[in-house]
Amino acid sequence: MNIWRINTRTQTLTIQPTPESWQHLGGRGLLARILVDEVPATCEPLRAKNKLIFAPGLMVGHRLSSCDRISIGGKSPLTGGVKESNAGGTTGLAITHLGIKALMLEDKPENDEWQILHLSADGATFDPAGELFGRGVFETAPLLLEKYGKKNAIALIGQGGEMELRAAGIQNLDKDLTPSRIAARGGLGALMGSKRIKAIVIDLSGGAKPPIADQPAFRAAQNTYSKSLMESPQIATYRDFGTAAMTNMTNHFGCLPTRGFSEGQFEGAERIGGVNMRETLLARGGESNPSHSCMPGCTIQCSNVYGGEDGKTLVSPLEYETIGLLGSNLGIDDLDVIAHLSWEISDLGLDTIEVGAALGVAAQAGLLDWGDGERASELVSEIRAGTPLGRILGNGAATTGKVLGVERVPVTKGQAMPAYDPRAIKGTGVTYATSPQGADHTCGLTIRAKIKHTDPEGQADISRGGQISMAGYDTLGVCIFAGFGFATVPETIPTLLNARYGWDVDETILQELGRETLNLEREFNKRAGFTVADDRLPEWMTREPVAPTNEVFDVSEEDLDNVFNW
Amino acid sequence: MNIWRINTRTQTLTIQPTPESWQHLGGRGLLARILVDEVPATCEPLRAKNKLIFAPGLMVGHRLSSCDRISIGGKSPLTGGVKESNAGGTTGLAITHLGIKALMLEDKPENDEWQILHLSADGATFDPAGELFGRGVFETAPLLLEKYGKKNAIALIGQGGEMELRAAGIQNLDKDLTPSRIAARGGLGALMGSKRIKAIVIDLSGGAKPPIADQPAFRAAQNTYSKSLMESPQIATYRDFGTAAMTNMTNHFGCLPTRGFSEGQFEGAERIGGVNMRETLLARGGESNPSHSCMPGCTIQCSNVYGGEDGKTLVSPLEYETIGLLGSNLGIDDLDVIAHLSWEISDLGLDTIEVGAALGVAAQAGLLDWGDGERASELVSEIRAGTPLGRILGNGAATTGKVLGVERVPVTKGQAMPAYDPRAIKGTGVTYATSPQGADHTCGLTIRAKIKHTDPEGQADISRGGQISMAGYDTLGVCIFAGFGFATVPETIPTLLNARYGWDVDETILQELGRETLNLEREFNKRAGFTVADDRLPEWMTREPVAPTNEVFDVSEEDLDNVFNW
Repeated sequence: MNIWRINTRTQTLTIQPTPESWQHLGGRGLLARILVDEVPATCEPLRAKNKLIFAPGLMVGHRLSSCDRISIGGKSPLTGGVKESNAGGTTGLAITHLGIKALMLEDKPENDEWQILHLSADGATFDPAGELFGRGVFETAPLLLEKYGKKNAIALIGQGGEMELRAAGIQNLDKDLTPSRIAARGGLGALMGSKRIKAIVIDLSGGAKPPIADQPAFRAAQNTYSKSLMESPQIATYRDFGTAAMTNMTNHFGCLPTRGFSEGQFEGAERIGGVNMRETLLARGGESNPSHSCMPGCTIQCSNVYGGEDGKTLVSPLEYETIGLLGSNLGIDDLDVIAHLSWEISDLGLDTIEVGAALGVAAQAGLLDWGDGERASELVSEIRAGTPLGRILGNGAATTGKVLGVERVPVTKGQAMPAYDPRAIKGTGVTYATSPQGADHTCGLTIRAKIKHTDPEGQADISRGGQISMAGYDTLGVCIFAGFGFATVPETIPTLLNARYGWDVDETILQELGRETLNLEREFNKRAGFTVADDRLPEWMTREPVAPTNEVFDVSEEDLDNVFNW
Repeated sequence: MNIWRINTRTQTLTIQPTPESWQHLGGRGLLARILVDEVPATCEPLRAKNKLIFAPGLMVGHRLSSCDRISIGGKSPLTGGVKESNAGGTTGLAITHLGIKALMLEDKPENDEWQILHLSADGATFDPAGELFGRGVFETAPLLLEKYGKKNAIALIGQGGEMELRAAGIQNLDKDLTPSRIAARGGLGALMGSKRIKAIVIDLSGGAKPPIADQPAFRAAQNTYSKSLMESPQIATYRDFGTAAMTNMTNHFGCLPTRGFSEGQFEGAERIGGVNMRETLLARGGESNPSHSCMPGCTIQCSNVYGGEDGKTLVSPLEYETIGLLGSNLGIDDLDVIAHLSWEISDLGLDTIEVGAALGVAAQAGLLDWGDGERASELVSEIRAGTPLGRILGNGAATTGKVLGVERVPVTKGQAMPAYDPRAIKGTGVTYATSPQGADHTCGLTIRAKIKHTDPEGQADISRGGQISMAGYDTLGVCIFAGFGFATVPETIPTLLNARYGWDVDETILQELGRETLNLEREFNKRAGFTVADDRLPEWMTREPVAPTNEVFDVSEEDLDNVFNW
């Protein structure tokens, strides 16, 4: 596996062997290593010294169910710190099949001539983006597939990334060629836009599966893992109801963000929940599909295709986080309205969590009434038009609060909170507060831990365990839900790695990789100027109780400061 | 001297004796002490836990020439760190004459009913602001004087503070009752707005001069100091040409910010300089006055009244910083245009440095052509109207850059640089980088040091000395220019303090107070999450040379990190 460095100014590709100290890492861990080694932590995120890096996880390339994720990263334009955002789809597979350990976009063009970067076994070419500039991802992707052929993976940005908005992510094609798997968080789309790359098209035809050192051992472990995954009861729930199944659970715990994180239960929870969504989609038929996989070979199939009354696709997927932030958080209880908003925001290539939170802040500033989906849609149109108000919202919740004079903003390290109010689920609050990534549910969600979520004691330990595991899984390229499979057969993780790479690692490897990754990420953030003061929830969440639990966030600062003392 | 605590929620005044550990401090040093003692460093700056504090310097109250300044502070809404901004005028004198060591506005009302806070020897009263809300400072001040009488000092905010914009300052009346002396920097007007106080009116009639322990010694030292001040050659320059005299000097050194800090010399420098201003004002006559004092008893008279062609006041004062940021920085070479912009921005109660820098950023984003004063005025009107674009600009240069996607922004710690390009005057660059206040020329300007300003070596030592002295002077309530008087008779400083307070301090007192103040400020910032990464100029200034010196900022990080190792 090699490192491919693309100089976006000179439009040249340099292929180098992977340095030894990078070889045992992949995905999130490798991103952190590269950032610490090569990117000055205090650099301006949208200028020449920052790098946009694509690194497939260590297990990527073999169509192992839910284990082909791509990690994308750089210095975050949103948080100013380390950033990794991972996604399903086919990008990870395609990059790995070209033998690329990490793809790095470096430097910055001096002009505004937008490019399509095409990668294949023959190397890299730059094609002018031409009329693709200014188009949304749903219009752009088919045009690219028409030009380059359907045997390509694509990572692309919408107008949000072109405008260098800090809520912009990078969309990736799913197995059905829809640009639906977004590396949403932290403004990486703005970083890609700063390099003037509209899309990266990766030829799937010329590559090859990565070699496997011990084929029989690999197959055996794969079978054991797949069987365990299929038998997991949680997986059945996600297959039936998608991540929207979570709505009922968070509403029950009183941590479903409602009307700008002012309440934790929503009277419309049932209408926007997984059961109603499934029934609606089954009744509507047509292109609707409540159970859809994003990566080839994934047996979980937690994704969905949300069809309208006519059965035609409104958006794919419609995820719990989107429902929480654009639904209950805005007081909107109509899945069709949420689906429409989600399509608009996704087409711009923006993060629905960040934009949803920003709209919640705008509502507090009086720009939007709770429940007014039409006005919410108008505000998203402002982003599309690039108006000053649109740029405010498109730069995320923290900036929106700063400009509009709202200090009751649900962010940590400048990144909006996903759809778990941390006052009612305090372990996740610890993760939000302390994760080097900023508020991020995928960095250590604690909702399935068998604890009292409102008790401040012990939450730091739960969060620590979750953060280490998730940093490990993100380094492997393994989906958060695949953990349900590995949990009962943890020995398959070292077996798969040893069989693939000819290594000799043991069952501690997941935690080892996780700790190494977190240490590297914290080192980068430290250099960027982060301190314990950044490892805190916003002060108002420690004072303002959230109904119905009437809890504030009261995990002690001592506990927060000890999360990474292992 | 007592501490007056005003609870803005309950509208009550509590008068307490000054705690012992606060007694030896005043002004900037006392603010830092109070912030460290009482304000949680990570609190939200516009909510209940922040405090707005007025503290006259230790020498205030005696009409010593240029020694009656008021320090205003709190946790900065702009930088998120410690903030002191001081001003001349009559506020310091009035507060001291009421026996107030520090006036503290605490808590926060739960409603939006704006108040006028009236202070007198009888205590404090709250009067509804009524129709004064929504008016600029130039309209508001006369109405307040009409209502309360002319024997009042006033500290007030314009619409900028009402809107809680982070470029908002607090205006103070000068000796001629014009609201012209603004504690401009760091967003303290927004903090006052968050407390819903439109103005503080302070009765001058009921108070008394503070007691003097040794009257003859005080008078003798006063005379020595006053004589030294009058004989200083620099003072004569300031009296004739005002601070605008600096234009020629900075242009000569190549550090006059021009067209968004892209050049250091301006072809229109002569047209906007001190000589041309003086000649224009003398020729125009009428209310024009090139030499005007802001505080009673000030013999420097560096201020001015800028009259238009008809001799009627366009604005007062027109200072060098304003000329640099709204003139050369925007490519505008017409003093009348600059005066008009300055009036508009000052009427809103905003910082001309911060707004000028924000307009320079907006120009880089294409919203304004260099030299287009009409368009600049339109953009200021957007602030007045409270539009989204206006709120962007009114929140300062850093936010403007963030929202508009411009990373070439001249700020440190989120505060805009005054009119000295730090690449061509590197000692001031060290001050910008390391001052706990953010970029601030009054915290240690090095332009008069007899050194090569472009040599990176030795600048940290020069800045250190300047920062310590200025923190000392700001603690005494002494104007930056009064230093020219004290410089040749430094023994008058301890003599005046000993005579006033019955102390027994020696000539090291200025530096002792300065170091104590800086230590306290750095302690607050550390708690707020600041690190050495915040003690840096923006990265682009280390890479992009500025003509005609073609210098970058290349003082070593080691030198920067050693500024406070004394």
